[in-house]
Order: sequence, then C-alpha cells, then structure tokens
Amino acid sequence: MSVSRVLVANRGEIAVRVLHACHELGLETVLAVSDADRDSLGARLADRAVCIGPARATDSYLNVGALVTAATATGCDALHPGYGFLAESPALAEACAAAGIVFVGPTAEQMRRMGDKIRARAQAGAAGVPTLPGSGRIDSPEDAVAAAHRIGLPLIVKASAGGGGRGMKIVTDAADLPDVLAAAAAEAKAAFGDPTLYVERFVADARHVEVQLLGDRYGSVVHLGERDCSLQRRNQKVVEEAPAPGIPEPVRAAIRDSAVRLAAGIGYENAGTVEFLYDAATHEFFFLEMNTRIQVEHPVTELITGIDLVQEQFRIAAGEPLRFGQDDVVFRGHAVECRVTAEVAAEGFRPNAGRITCWEPPAGPNVRVDTHCYPGYLVPMYYDSLLAKVVVYGSTREEAVQRMRRALHRFRVEGIETTVDVLGFLVGRPEFGSGAVTTHLIADVLGEYTSGLEVAS
Amino acid sequence: MSVSRVLVANRGEIAVRVLHACHELGLETVLAVSDADRDSLGARLADRAVCIGPARATDSYLNVGALVTAATATGCDALHPGYGFLAESPALAEACAAAGIVFVGPTAEQMRRMGDKIRARAQAGAAGVPTLPGSGRIDSPEDAVAAAHRIGLPLIVKASAGGGGRGMKIVTDAADLPDVLAAAAAEAKAAFGDPTLYVERFVADARHVEVQLLGDRYGSVVHLGERDCSLQRRNQKVVEEAPAPGIPEPVRAAIRDSAVRLAAGIGYENAGTVEFLYDAATHEFFFLEMNTRIQVEHPVTELITGIDLVQEQFRIAAGEPLRFGQDDVVFRGHAVECRVTAEVAAEGFRPNAGRITCWEPPAGPNVRVDTHCYPGYLVPMYYDSLLAKVVVYGSTREEAVQRMRRALHRFRVEGIETTVDVLGFLVGRPEFGSGAVTTHLIADVLGEYTSGLEVAS
Repeated sequence: MSVSRVLVANRGEIAVRVLHACHELGLETVLAVSDADRDSLGARLADRAVCIGPARATDSYLNVGALVTAATATGCDALHPGYGFLAESPALAEACAAAGIVFVGPTAEQMRRMGDKIRARAQAGAAGVPTLPGSGRIDSPEDAVAAAHRIGLPLIVKASAGGGGRGMKIVTDAADLPDVLAAAAAEAKAAFGDPTLYVERFVADARHVEVQLLGDRYGSVVHLGERDCSLQRRNQKVVEEAPAPGIPEPVRAAIRDSAVRLAAGIGYENAGTVEFLYDAATHEFFFLEMNTRIQVEHPVTELITGIDLVQEQFRIAAGEPLRFGQDDVVFRGHAVECRVTAEVAAEGFRPNAGRITCWEPPAGPNVRVDTHCYPGYLVPMYYDSLLAKVVVYGSTREEAVQRMRRALHRFRVEGIETTVDVLGFLVGRPEFGSGAVTTHLIADVLGEYTSGLEVAS
Repeated sequence: MSVSRVLVANRGEIAVRVLHACHELGLETVLAVSDADRDSLGARLADRAVCIGPARATDSYLNVGALVTAATATGCDALHPGYGFLAESPALAEACAAAGIVFVGPTAEQMRRMGDKIRARAQAGAAGVPTLPGSGRIDSPEDAVAAAHRIGLPLIVKASAGGGGRGMKIVTDAADLPDVLAAAAAEAKAAFGDPTLYVERFVADARHVEVQLLGDRYGSVVHLGERDCSLQRRNQKVVEEAPAPGIPEPVRAAIRDSAVRLAAGIGYENAGTVEFLYDAATHEFFFLEMNTRIQVEHPVTELITGIDLVQEQFRIAAGEPLRFGQDDVVFRGHAVECRVTAEVAAEGFRPNAGRITCWEPPAGPNVRVDTHCYPGYLVPMYYDSLLAKVVVYGSTREEAVQRMRRALHRFRVEGIETTVDVLGFLVGRPEFGSGAVTTHLIADVLGEYTSGLEVAS
C-alpha cells in the first residue's frame, strides 16, 4: 500500500475501529488525542498517541492546523477523519493535500458539492434521482410562503449547511413560517456558521433508508446494499439494520441504483452514503442528502456483505482500484445495530459522564461490540454520548432481532447511566419485531417506557 | 421450541458456546461442573450450575449416571454433550431417552454405526463413497500381512473404536507388523476399551478435508461446505479453515455430495461431519470417518455460511424440520481458526496449568474468540489444554490469513505458557499463506521454530 503511517483524527469507538483496520493492513498508527483522552483505549491501542490540545473539541478535534501538524510532526502519510468532527470538512482535506498527506475520504470538491444540501438536491435531480418537492435557497419569508403554496403543508425547514438531522423544523401552519425561519436561520448560523435555509415537503409516515457506496478514482462505484435507520430520537439514529425490511424488491433495486447513479455522476471516491426518505405508505423514495464519510452504522453493512469498509477506505485512498465489482458483492442474512449512549432515559435523556465501574458487554458468535469503553474508564463530559454499538448478525431478521434482545439483556454496565434498558424495550416492541419501523416509532412508544420507569421507582 | 431447559454436559469453551446458543434461543440452562470447574466462566453464565463429581473426568464428565441424574434433578428436558467426553456415547443418548430427556445429537444407533470405523467404512462403500484400500477387522498378524500384500506399503493401523487420530500407527516394513499390531491393540484397548484394529493404505502427501452436515428427522440433509484441517500436530488439529483452498471445483462438489449421500443413507439427524483424506497430488479423496457431534472447528463454517450450527442442533433435536434447503446456503468469504492451547512449545509441547494473570485476546470486526478464560482464571490440570479458538473472517483467503496474523500478534497472555507464538509462526509461513497445507507441514517446519527459540533464549 502506498501509505504506511496513519494519523487517526478522531476519538471514541470509531478511533478504535479505525485502529483495528490499520493494524490489519500493517499500517503504523498515531492517534490524535485531546487532554481528556490521554488514557483512552485508543491511546493504548495505537502505536503512538499525540496530544492535539485541550479537552474542548474546538480546541482539539476541530482544529485543522493542530491535526495536520500532528500528522506531519509524527511522519504520517495519511489521515483518517472518522465521522463527526472534521470528517466532512473540505478545509481538512485541502490542508492534508497541501501537506502531502493522503486524506482518507473523498476530494474536497466532492465534499463541497454534497455538503451544500441545496446543491446536492440539484445534483440528485440532474442524475434522475427523485427529490421531495421543495425550494432552493430561501432568502425571505415571502420565498418560503410562495414555496409553501407550491409544495403544500406540512413542510420541513432545513439548513443547507446542515445534515444529520440538526436544525430541522416542521411547519404545519403557514402563519408560523416567519418565526420558524428566523429561529432556524439563527440555529443554522450558530451550528454551521451558515444561516442558509431551504424547505421540503414533510412526509409523516416516513422511513429513513440509506445506501452504502464505495467508489474508486477510476470511476467504479458499487453499492453494498441499503440500511434502515428509521428508529430515531430527535432526528438522531438509535437503531439501524440492514437490509431494510419490507421494501418491495423492484423499489429496493431502484433505490440502490439511484444512489450509484448520483455518486457515479460526480466521480465519487471512497466510502459514502446516500440517504433517502422512504414513504412507507406509497413506497416512493426521495433523496435527502449524501454523507461523504464512514457512518456510525457501517457495521450492519459489513455484517451482511463481509466487506471491511474501513479497510476499503484505505485501499481507495491509497489509489488502488476497487477489488470487486457489483456482482461480486454477496448479501447474506440480516444485521441490527443499537447505539448505547450515556444518557438518563428517565430524565429526558440527559447526558451523563463518570467512571464506569463495571463493563460487561455481550459476547458470543454473531455479536459484535464496537466500543472504546473498559472497566474503570472515565467517560469525559465533553463529547458525544456514544459508549458502544451492539451489532448482531442473524441468518434471518427474526434471528437477528432475537439475538439483539438477548445481547442487550446480558449487557451489564455500572457506574454510569446508559440506554441499554430503553434499547431493550425498543427492540422488544412488537412494532420492531414485525419490521414496522418509522421515524416516529420511538416518540410513539417512549412514553410507555418512561411511565413504566415511574411506576417501577 | 419443544424443549425449555438444557443441561450443558461439558466444560471449557464449548460449554460457553452452547450456553450462548441457549440464551439466544430463550432456553434455560444448567451447567454440569466438576469440582474443578465451579468457578468457571460457564458456571457464571449459566442460569444454574450443578456439581456432578470430582475433578477427574472419569468421575464427572464421563459419568453417564451423574449427568442424567443432574438433568432430571434440575428439571432439564434436553442435554447438549458438546464435543469430546461423552459426545459420541450411544450409552448417554440411550440413558437420556430412557429418562425422557432430548439428547442434542443423532440417535444412539446412528452413533454406533459411525463409531465403529470398520462398519462406517462399509457404509461408505455401500453409499458409493470412495474409501482407501484397506482391510476389515484384523484378527491376527497373518490377516495383516495378507492385507499388506493386497494394499501395499506403507499402510496405517487404526483402532475400529477410535477416531480423532488417537492410536494410529504407520507401517513401512511388513516385518514390523506383528509388533505394531500388538502395541496398537493394547493402546486401543486402553483408550477405547476395544482392541479391534483395521489397516488402510497410507497416503504421504495428504490433506484432511471434512464436510459439515445438518440432517433432520424428516430425511433432509444439507452440507455447509467443507473445511481443511490439514495443519495437525501428532494427529491433532491445530489450524482449520473454510472453504478448503486449492481444490478443483468438480472435486469439491464430489466431496460434498459424497458426504451428503453417506449421511442421507442412514437418515442422519443433527450436526455431523464426514472426514476425508484428500490426496493433494492426485486430487483423489477417500472416506476416513464420520463424527456424530459438533466439532471444535465448527466456527469457520459458521463464518462462511452465517448459520449458527449450535442453534440448529437444538432446533433439529426439538423435532423441527431444517429451516433451509441446500440452495439457501450462501457461502461467502474465507475463515481461519487457530487453537490456542496451554502448552510449552519449547519443551515438546508439554501441557501446563496455572493462573492466567493477563488475558487480552484480540478483538475487532471479523475476529471471533471462543473461550472460557478470563483474567485471574485458574486453568485446571485435569482436562484438554484448549484455552481459546481465535477465528477470523475475510472476504478472501489472503485477507483472512492477514487478519489472523495480526490477531495472534495482538493476543497477550501472562501467567501461563500458550501456543500463541507458535501459531503466529505457522500462519506466518509462506506455505500456509499460499494454501500449500498438508498433514506433515507442521512437523516439517516446527524444527525451525523450536531451534529459533533456543537461539533466542
């Protein structure tokens, strides 16, 4: 491979995941750590750890200059950004290029084209991929009202620089539009540094379906099937699975083809995901956005395809052609992932931090736990609350769901509050068992869970 | 399922493996433990542990009466025998039946037919499965000399009640026959309680290839592909993989079909394995024996098929029909297993016991470790030296081999001597990398390893 030493520019479970891939590829590793992560599992697993700044992410994991300096100072010739933080930052990709470091991801230009959601919508339309009726850039309340007349209500206001569900607002009454727009623009400005908004039709009975892609620099793009990530809480994914259940085969094929067409149209390189809104009532699907990085939920795809996505990311970034064509991808079985977070379900999912005194994740055949936690680990308060991803495989969906129920049941954590129990409740629900997943399922059933908590206590 | 509470009549990693399957199927578990295994991981994982006798296996794990009593006393309606110990004991199967307990395995009669290797050879011949030129029961040195004239030399003397490689002796000079027969008969009598011998042609450039089968009581038999288990030391398997590398596809298909034909011919129920000797020079294959139980190396088959063999064992034993036909079995990728044992390679692989002070097995995607060990575990001196099975999956053989090399490299054990390093040496050999595996490879290269040890020390 044309790269030999990698700066892993992330933390938590994804840092550990990337380190595993590096070790198996024979790549040396340097982990960039903040002050708060000096004792992390990743720091122990990496060949070397280098501190890039104080605990606050803006002073460390979000500091392009510190990351590139760390890479060059330690003789790295590649940088893996993980997900979140600067994973979709064209600035980081460009700074790497300027320093002669291979950025493990797409080109800065590809990130820009897809990072701008209005531009991405246009790109999808040009590639013949269905998009929701919606607007371009909204410059004034009048624009929005005109769009609302054309599209109909309810609609959803989104930030063009956004993604990942942040800053989205649903509007059911046109009279609310001016206020909502003002609030959303302020939020988008604060979160992304860019107040630009657009609107789309809101689909009530929606599912979230996304297609995993790999593209190389020689024009090949293959899909690795789709995932269903409908189980969300406040627009954050909680439970994911692959393949997506209950989609008629011709529609499934059309969704996969649409994603490949969009990526091939821009010569997309590396791992990427095209997200769709899927209307469970009509079986229509609509482009939402493309994520130009590895996703949290990538393991479910790995389990049904047997392909190591992170290793493929390195091969692609090193300039190798894809080792397989579409027909070589063999799909088998079903996989489910649950995100275990450090949150207190009974208190509105308030995040919590502290020392883990007991950490006994489930184990056994077909149970994979991606985590950076260990007994005695002090969960810092500065970052995302993800502690572990419990991922299971089954030869059928029923088998996978049953395995997940048992796995969560056996997961013992002490010293910190986690969502293990609430996840167990969710995957134990008959709606999940039957595959009747929608983006509002969690909100629909969570009241039952929390009222159960009150009765119990 | 028609069973609800299982006595797990075994110890070590297979007890843990079976407990996992039970938990996932929603079956209650009782673990039979000897005095030496009261603090085992299995005892912690089971719903309940019950002591069946002193440490010595003959007083506990080999005591049919104690096991059946433990099962009935704790209200179990099924018994899983694991492998080794009484896994192939018709007496245990019959005692279970008499007590109204479902034995998770084939019928006693099926075990008898295959447990008697002379009878099994005849059964294979009748099913049109190639067997090595050989004899029936040898009653006198004259019988053996006559057989040697017919078969040619070298030949191999085997115990009819044997299996698993024990008590086998190679003869290259007919003059040695009387002495070898006397020694082998005495050994067979001591090990199996039966001195009956037979002889077969000895193939020098041999590989060990075996086919995994599942059969139900309704006459369905499917194969789950074959494994190569050529890497052996003193006839004990050390490294296994699936599928078997370098076999021409028509030969592979013929091997698989032969195994299915043999099992279907006796209406075989439950998991079983038909072992073949494969002549790497001529691509001929010959029936060796059938094992009527789950095998140590079953995980490599699970990884390439996605089928949980132990769960299927329970379904079949409970009277369910197979959930899939031959065409539903999807083979994907490549898997390798290494058996990590508590042996001192530098001292002729002397077994050792003691307390494990550090136990950090490899982890990460596509790395599975089946084990009963944990930090602080006291390895008892009474049993098999297997500590853990490191099993890896790769989308190609090359990827799997590379992953195994890295996994072994990361395996840290302290407090007890293990074979981790020698396994690393073996899978690092170019012969293994190229798939040129034979039953004499380990003997060929091990001298190099141990002389390296002497230089280093």
